[in-house]
This record gives sequence, C-alpha cells and structure tokens, in this order.
Amino acid sequence: MAKVKIKPLSDRVVIKPEPPEEKTESGLYIPDTAKEKPQRGTVIAVGPGRVENGTKIEMSVKEGDKVLYGKYAGTEITIDGEEYLIMRETDILGIIEEEK
Amino acid sequence: MAKVKIKPLSDRVVIKPEPPEEKTESGLYIPDTAKEKPQRGTVIAVGPGRVENGTKIEMSVKEGDKVLYGKYAGTEITIDGEEYLIMRETDILGIIEEEK
Amino acid sequence: MAKVKIKPLSDRVVIKPEPPEEKTESGLYIPDTAKEKPQRGTVIAVGPGRVENGTKIEMSVKEGDKVLYGKYAGTEITIDGEEYLIMRETDILGIIEEEK
Amino acid sequence: MAKVKIKPLSDRVVIKPEPPEEKTESGLYIPDTAKEKPQRGTVIAVGPGRVENGTKIEMSVKEGDKVLYGKYAGTEITIDGEEYLIMRETDILGIIEEEK
Amino acid sequence: MAKVKIKPLSDRVVIKPEPPEEKTESGLYIPDTAKEKPQRGTVIAVGPGRVENGTKIEMSVKEGDKVLYGKYAGTEITIDGEEYLIMRETDILGIIEEEK
Amino acid sequence: MAKVKIKPLSDRVVIKPEPPEEKTESGLYIPDTAKEKPQRGTVIAVGPGRVENGTKIEMSVKEGDKVLYGKYAGTEITIDGEEYLIMRETDILGIIEEEK
Amino acid sequence: MAKVKIKPLSDRVVIKPEPPEEKTESGLYIPDTAKEKPQRGTVIAVGPGRVENGTKIEMSVKEGDKVLYGKYAGTEITIDGEEYLIMRETDILGIIEEEK
Repeated sequence: MAKVKIKPLSDRVVIKPEPPEEKTESGLYIPDTAKEKPQRGTVIAVGPGRVENGTKIEMSVKEGDKVLYGKYAGTEITIDGEEYLIMRETDILGIIEEEK
Repeated sequence: MAKVKIKPLSDRVVIKPEPPEEKTESGLYIPDTAKEKPQRGTVIAVGPGRVENGTKIEMSVKEGDKVLYGKYAGTEITIDGEEYLIMRETDILGIIEEEK
Repeated sequence: MAKVKIKPLSDRVVIKPEPPEEKTESGLYIPDTAKEKPQRGTVIAVGPGRVENGTKIEMSVKEGDKVLYGKYAGTEITIDGEEYLIMRETDILGIIEEEK
Repeated sequence: MAKVKIKPLSDRVVIKPEPPEEKTESGLYIPDTAKEKPQRGTVIAVGPGRVENGTKIEMSVKEGDKVLYGKYAGTEITIDGEEYLIMRETDILGIIEEEK
Repeated sequence: MAKVKIKPLSDRVVIKPEPPEEKTESGLYIPDTAKEKPQRGTVIAVGPGRVENGTKIEMSVKEGDKVLYGKYAGTEITIDGEEYLIMRETDILGIIEEEK
Repeated sequence: MAKVKIKPLSDRVVIKPEPPEEKTESGLYIPDTAKEKPQRGTVIAVGPGRVENGTKIEMSVKEGDKVLYGKYAGTEITIDGEEYLIMRETDILGIIEEEK
Repeated sequence: MAKVKIKPLSDRVVIKPEPPEEKTESGLYIPDTAKEKPQRGTVIAVGPGRVENGTKIEMSVKEGDKVLYGKYAGTEITIDGEEYLIMRETDILGIIEEEK
C-alpha cells in the first residue's frame, strides 16, 4: 500500500478516512467547502492494546474494519502525501457492517 | 431494517430517537422550530459492554428497549439517510415501561 | 400512578419534586416568578445500584422516601405531562424524616 | 429540636452554623452587613459513612461536635425556618475543643 | 497555649505562620504592605492521617516541626484572635531543619 | 553524538525532531515561516518505564526508532546548542517503519 | 552548605538552579532581561518517596544529580538568601550526564 508504514502504540489505530460523497442524495454535486468532514473510515493499522494494571486489554477492531468515529476524533497525519487519522480505540464509536 | 448495520464498541448503544410529537396536548400543531429535541428513543444495537480491570461489565439495556436520555447525550450519526444517536450506556437515564 | 413508568439505570432515582409553598410564613401569597426552586421531593423509582469494580453498591434510598437535593441536581423529564427529576443517588443530600 | 429531621446520606453531615459574634473584641457592635460569614458550627446529624471499594469508611465526627469548615463549604438548607448547612465530612477542617 | 484547640481531621495540620521579617537584609524596615506573605510556620496540631483504601497513611510531620509551604496553601482560620493556617499535609513542601 | 547525555526519568523519551522538508512535492522551496512544525523524529534516549501500582510498565519504543508525535507534544530542550524534545511515551502516536 | 536545611516531604526534591549562561555562543554578553529562565539544576535534597496504595515508590534521583526540568516546574523558595526550587520528582524530565 504505502511505502511508509505506521505501527501504532498502545490502543491506537490508523484510519484512512472515507472520501466524502461527491453527490447529495438528490443527485446534486456539492462544492468542496460544503462537504461534511467524513466520519467513516477503514482501519489500516492496529496497536497492540492498552495495558491496564499489568493486563493487556485486547483490541476490538482489526485491519480492514470499516469504522465510525466522532467528527473531531484523532490526529491528522500525512504519510507519503496521503491523509490519515490516528486515534485511540476508545474514540471509535462502532464497526460498520454492510449487508448486501 | 437498514442495509448498513452498526456494531457499537464497548458500552455504547445505537438509539433511534422518537419523532417529536406533532401536536401539543391542547391539540395545536407545533411549527418545526419550536419542537423540543427528543429525549426518548429505541435501542437499535448494543455493544458488548465495557471492560473494567479485566472484568466485562454486563449491559443493562437490550435491543428494542425504549429509553430516556439527556438532551445533549450522544453523537448524531446518519446511516442510509436516517438519523441515529450513538451514546455510552452511562448516558441513558432509564428504561421506559409503558403499561396498557 | 402514571401510565408510563421509568426504570432508572445504575444508581439513578426518579423524584417527584414537592410543589413550592404558595404562602410565605407571614401569610402572603408569592407570585409565581418569586417562588424558590423546590429542593425537596419524593422518590418514585430507584435504580438497581452502581457497580464498582464488580461489586454492586446497595442503594440508600427507597420508593416513597422524602429527600433533599441541591438546587441544580438532576435532569428534568416530563412523563405524561408531569415534571420529574432523574438524578444519581450521590446528588441526594439526605432523607427527610417528619415526626408528628 | 426541630420537628423535621434530616438523615444525611453517605459521608454527609448537617451542621447548625454558629451565629456570628455581635461584638468585636474591643466591644463595638458590628452592623449586619459587616459580619463575617460564620465558619464554625455544631454537628446536628451524621451520615453512615462513605463506601469505598466495598468498605465503609468510619465517620470522624459525631453529633454535638463543634467543627470548623471553609467559608464556602456545603449547601444551605432551610428546615422549619432555620438555616443549616449540609456538607461532606471532607469539607470539615477540624473539631474545636474548648478548654475551660 | 490557646484556650481553644483544633483537632484537625484526616491528613490536615494546623500551622502558626512565622511573622514576616521586619527588616530587609540591608537593614531597612519594610512598610506593612510590602511584606511578603510568609511561607514558613510551626506545626501546632496534626490530624490522624488520611485513609486510603482502608489503610491509614502515617503523617510525616509532627507538632513543633518548622515547615515550608506554598504561598497560597491552606485556609486561614482565626482562633482566640490569632491567625492560623489549616492545610493538608500534601500542601507542605518540606521540613526546615536549623543547624546551629 | 552529543557531549551531554540525558537519562530520561519514568516513561519519558528524548527525541531528535526530523528537519522539516525544504521542498514541497512540486519542487518549490518553502520559506522558513511557512514550514510545518515537524511531527516526526528519532528516539535518542529512553527512560526506564513508568511504575504503576508497584509494577514497572515496559517501554514500547527503543533508541533509534523513528516515531510520530502530535504537533504540540513534549517540552523543547537545548543540549549543546541542538534542539530536542522530551516527552512521555504516551505522547508518541506510533513507530514509523520505512520499507525499501 | 547552607545553615538552614530542608527535608522535602513525599517525592519532592530541592534543586539549586544553574545560573544562566552570561554569554551567547558567539561570545556576546546577554543583558539581564533577555536571559532565559534556567531549566537545569543540581539536586540538593531528596524526599523519602511517595506512598501509593501502601507501597513506597523509590526515588529515581539522588543528591548531586544534575537534572533537567520544565520552565515552570516547582515552587521558588529562599533559604538564607539563596534561591532554590522545590518540586515533585515527576516534574523532573531527566538526569544530565556530562561526559568528558
């Protein structure tokens, strides 16, 4: 994927935010400034888990999971010119399961 | 129900807020801007529970429960065009039991 | 009592605030805006108790108790047109025991 | 004493504040607005003690103790027209022992 | 010493602040408003110690100790017309040992 | 390397921030004031680890690791005229692994 | 050294700040107001260590250590006309080891 890889520490995850939808439901194109900040993304890398009183807490998300997170969660980082978010697992609200 | 499903993490729950009542008790229609923000809703999805010092804390609400929550509780999320709230169980004040 | 019942979660209680006294001690009627916000009420429903490190903490109040609480304690909720307060037990200052 | 009694919850105590002294040491009467807010009082009622990790912490004050507390400690409550303070034991600074 | 004695609660101590020095090092008298607020004092009374998870933490200072404390530490109290400070032991920075 | 060495305490690490890139991707030189504050650096020294309830928590980074940290993490220190950052390990977001 | 000695409580240490350098690297004298507040000093006295849940946490610094601390760490105290800092060990960033 990228030439540079991030190994997150503790219970952090690296997320590739989903590009905002280019069209509204009624089919209109949204100009760039009106786009909502995305709240969905895909987990790219997962830390080993947080240690609490000597016990490692297992991570609940894994690479490839589509997740939902709050609008202001995480820190924006740029790797090889691409934008990612790095956040604690506690900032992830839930996992998106798409049924087909 | 929805094509997209959310599996909440930790002790979070997804809630479908109850639509605000269209009429006052005296039978008048309320214009849209005067409607109170709903504080009731139905639990749609329940997380596995929070882990505290290595022990999983059981959830006290289950899918289908009608619950009461504070005016500013939770994060608004949009799934397939529908508005939901995702919040921690600690933000739920109580379960509504309707008797008939 | 009410057709809708609330089952509070954790260590929360539902309280029916006592109506403010209509007369001052000297017998004057107080206009509505000068009435003090009530700080007394009756416990209507009691949660199962808070869980701390896997141990359930017993509740200290029970249904029917007359209690004292701080002026800004709790969240106001409306059930069947009646106003109630829902608050954590830690917001209750004490139980009122009336002797006759 | 009073017809209404308060049973404080947790580690709270009910205190009857000592009336401010009417005279300065040099014998002058102080007009009402210059009186310092009292910081001494007598313990009227004592809660059962706070529970910490399943262990009840014994109370260090008892009914009748004269105590010292910070200027802004506690919540003012009115019982049968008399003013009292209800505060946590941790807000009490010390017990006053008068020797004669 | 004083007719009124204070028995501090928890890990609190009563301190008699050292009077500010009347002269600067070069021998000038300092007018009252320029005097620094004292940061030294003598321990007059010591509480039984704080209880943490059921274990009493021993006090590290004793009556008569000369101690150093931060400029804004403690609560000022007046006993029999004399000014004292009551503060938690954690607000004491260190014990002063004068060698002769 | 430097004549002065720092042995960090607790879970702190000393980091040599990576010099900001002098060119944009399109090959333009960036004037000094427009340079972004670096968020990458190399670990120069590692503390022994934080002690939590008597247990030493192992460090997750080691000397030589290239790490990613938030824009405002750490304290700037100058050793022998060179600028370093000293921060807690919890302020490090992840380890950068460059593949070739 | 000084006639007055301070025995710090808990995990506090007394530090003699290093005098700011009088010359810049290029050999210019710095006027007094431009001098940076020192961030280095020598440990003069060390407390017995903090007690956490009944266990004493060993100190990591000892008398004579040259240490690095944040610009605003500690409380300034004057002993026998000399300026010192008293701070918690957690405010010390690291120990300086000078190689020759």
